[in-house]
Amino acid sequence: MSSNSAVIKEKNFTWSGVERKDYKTDGHNFKDIHRYTLLADEHPELNTQTRYFEIQPGGYSSLEYHHHPHSVVIIRGRGHVVLNNELREISAFDMVYISPDTIHQFHADDGEPLGFICIVDRYRDRPVIPSDEKIKSMIDSEEVLHKIRK
Amino acid sequence: MSSNSAVIKEKNFTWSGVERKDYKTDGHNFKDIHRYTLLADEHPELNTQTRYFEIQPGGYSSLEYHHHPHSVVIIRGRGHVVLNNELREISAFDMVYISPDTIHQFHADDGEPLGFICIVDRYRDRPVIPSDEKIKSMIDSEEVLHKIRK
Repeated sequence: MSSNSAVIKEKNFTWSGVERKDYKTDGHNFKDIHRYTLLADEHPELNTQTRYFEIQPGGYSSLEYHHHPHSVVIIRGRGHVVLNNELREISAFDMVYISPDTIHQFHADDGEPLGFICIVDRYRDRPVIPSDEKIKSMIDSEEVLHKIRK
Repeated sequence: MSSNSAVIKEKNFTWSGVERKDYKTDGHNFKDIHRYTLLADEHPELNTQTRYFEIQPGGYSSLEYHHHPHSVVIIRGRGHVVLNNELREISAFDMVYISPDTIHQFHADDGEPLGFICIVDRYRDRPVIPSDEKIKSMIDSEEVLHKIRK
């Protein structure tokens, strides 16, 4: 008896049958980042979605926050992540947990792409771009203020 | 302002502050496998748990099935996975989806450990060890019957 189980084979950080997509369909507060949806609505019994994001050297994800948490495993390269008032180095196989309402942004360092698996609840709220007032209320680290792109 | 977000640094496939644990507390239908719980109940807002499993060369996980699905990302080594009547090769960065009630077992090949991230719902049913009758009703591939360990 077969099943709906599946192995999705990887080669050079692309996956068989999985399309490279734009990171988002609108906005321009991000740079050189793409999305690969590995597991999503084709499996209605799944309560989560599993995505792979890849940021090219010098690129970054959007500065945003939302109520749903992110479970992130870095699988390629190195870079930095902003978590509210903190700036942390990240590299392959580090685990990043982004708790509800944390302002966050991923940055790839120069030299190689930063790639990470990100698991989210299937039903979740939409990301919010923080206003300047919100940023001011949450972040006072000069290092972080210098790093963020909006 | 800080947050409950966290970066858990990895080194040689161990994670800062994360203990290596027994795979299960009972049974002996598995071999040379350990569990690292990366994200779990310390974050009550998380609907999932993220675990890393590592199987030493020649080892295997228990042959089992359950109603909750598994989202699995291989991050180290190579091996095989049984999915009901199928035997599939797996290696680093392949994605494995295990759908509800699929009889499954991971095997590390000889030569290097097989390591994988496995995400599950926080609230989930317990695994069931298939009876010989159940195996007979689900599996008739000689290749799979030769591979499984129980």
